Amino acid sequence: MYILVVDLGGTQIRAARCTPDGQMEERVAIPTLAAQGPEVVLDRIRQAIRMVWPQEGPVTALALSAPGPVDAHRGVVRFTPNIPGWKDVPLRDLMAESFGVPTFLANDANLAALGEFRFGAGQGVRDLIYLTISTGIGGGIIIDGRLYEGGQGLGGEVGHMVVEPNGPLCGCGGYGCLEAVASGTAIAREARAALERGASSLLTGMVSSPGEVTAREVAEAAARGDDLSRRIFARAGTYIGLALVSLMYLFNPALFIIGGSVANAGDLLFDPMRQTMRERSQRVYWENTPVVPAALGDDVVLLGALALALERV
Amino acid sequence: MYILVVDLGGTQIRAARCTPDGQMEERVAIPTLAAQGPEVVLDRIRQAIRMVWPQEGPVTALALSAPGPVDAHRGVVRFTPNIPGWKDVPLRDLMAESFGVPTFLANDANLAALGEFRFGAGQGVRDLIYLTISTGIGGGIIIDGRLYEGGQGLGGEVGHMVVEPNGPLCGCGGYGCLEAVASGTAIAREARAALERGASSLLTGMVSSPGEVTAREVAEAAARGDDLSRRIFARAGTYIGLALVSLMYLFNPALFIIGGSVANAGDLLFDPMRQTMRERSQRVYWENTPVVPAALGDDVVLLGALALALERV
Repeated sequence: MYILVVDLGGTQIRAARCTPDGQMEERVAIPTLAAQGPEVVLDRIRQAIRMVWPQEGPVTALALSAPGPVDAHRGVVRFTPNIPGWKDVPLRDLMAESFGVPTFLANDANLAALGEFRFGAGQGVRDLIYLTISTGIGGGIIIDGRLYEGGQGLGGEVGHMVVEPNGPLCGCGGYGCLEAVASGTAIAREARAALERGASSLLTGMVSSPGEVTAREVAEAAARGDDLSRRIFARAGTYIGLALVSLMYLFNPALFIIGGSVANAGDLLFDPMRQTMRERSQRVYWENTPVVPAALGDDVVLLGALALALERV
Repeated sequence: MYILVVDLGGTQIRAARCTPDGQMEERVAIPTLAAQGPEVVLDRIRQAIRMVWPQEGPVTALALSAPGPVDAHRGVVRFTPNIPGWKDVPLRDLMAESFGVPTFLANDANLAALGEFRFGAGQGVRDLIYLTISTGIGGGIIIDGRLYEGGQGLGGEVGHMVVEPNGPLCGCGGYGCLEAVASGTAIAREARAALERGASSLLTGMVSSPGEVTAREVAEAAARGDDLSRRIFARAGTYIGLALVSLMYLFNPALFIIGGSVANAGDLLFDPMRQTMRERSQRVYWENTPVVPAALGDDVVLLGALALALERV
């Protein structure tokens, strides 16, 4: 009895065959070939699934992760920033038809939340919120031990809470979303703008032009004591903290888990986050809502897909 | 078979005897006597309950509404702004002991949400969010037909979402909460400050000093075309709209219901709210999330308490 899981990314498709107790028996990674168009990508997904299909024994479920927003009720990938031509693809039903097994689909950040809940930093906690701070900001909300996808299937988009009414344009078309002011992209943008204004910073010695700065260099410079970089991280951490305050008042979760590459900066980001929560919410909220780093590594999304299948089958 | 419901307010305690199909057979209202201290208030609640207790027939549940935040899991009123000395009162268990029937307790705005869901503007909608815009801002979140109270019982506090990072101090100790920038109190504060700065407005002819302005006069002046008052309402409506945007991305509800005395201003408040939603969220969200006025009047909280009892018994 097996569960097959697939993590569709813009450059790679990863797939694995899992036993119901969470062991990954076999895994593969093949190029997505996104530039060759939607049909080719669908065939690549099918190929990855066939590669991990068991020689014997039944497949009880197929669980798929997609980058970008998913309509959870209809099983549709609304669009994916990194795969040209994907718009409203009914990925769940397409794969269910191809393979004839119960198929589940969710957004990758939502699945990462479920992975951390079932196998990572959130084990044993029934109500938690996970945020991934990376190029963008995504996340997932676990309510009473289940992934919460909103009344109409498009909820859980923590990255698009408005935290700065007069903030910069976001990829979603809004302004001042959390993602627009606190993602890796926003951190790099702030640093570049400061350098172009002539700010003095260790960053100038680390890149040959401001345009090359990414959040990684800002984190590195901040770790070496660079003032500008520390201020930029403090600002991002403060905005994330404001989002956590709102999330506490709305969901009153028992735990926040913060993952994603930008969260590797550790205290640089966690300190202003926690300080903002203490300063701006009542004690009964922040005192009972720890903020911890994510525990799982690269497999978090595949493990989340497995958790989704286990939850739904 | 009866359900008894009680609405504890700062000045009045209202109680009613209901049949399970939602008919209120008898109702009473007695003074709270809040100034006489917590024990007196508890006795007044007991007295109101005894006044509607049936001559014959069993009481299957008692449902209580409290003003101010309630710890839903423990059945405790954390504090109430209008009743001095109330702090962490285990009201649910106290009344259950006194009367020996299953007893339920929730915050008044949470119950109003449930009332609108079951008997008002939200009938038939399984996922909705209700906001009441009044002296403060409260609300309630209905998920899949049930009142959502958060992972640790203190959720659903929509009035304390942070919508303005650099906003004014809120009663909760935070800054820039929705309540601090868009409640009736905030609207009056903005108007007074403008008048004190010497702004020209119809308001000056309506009160003898700026300190007398309340949200009601601002609404009246705005309805008569006063520029300052219209701008103040537009600002409040815009902030509420920003909160609705975040709520759409998090909960993706099928309906927003807006109640409370300030919402009686109608389009003055609803127009900027809806415009903000359209401008700042994706079409798939705002197009599928109508915003409607509350349908129930003064009995909304009692009806919500009845709905809570019907949900839980």
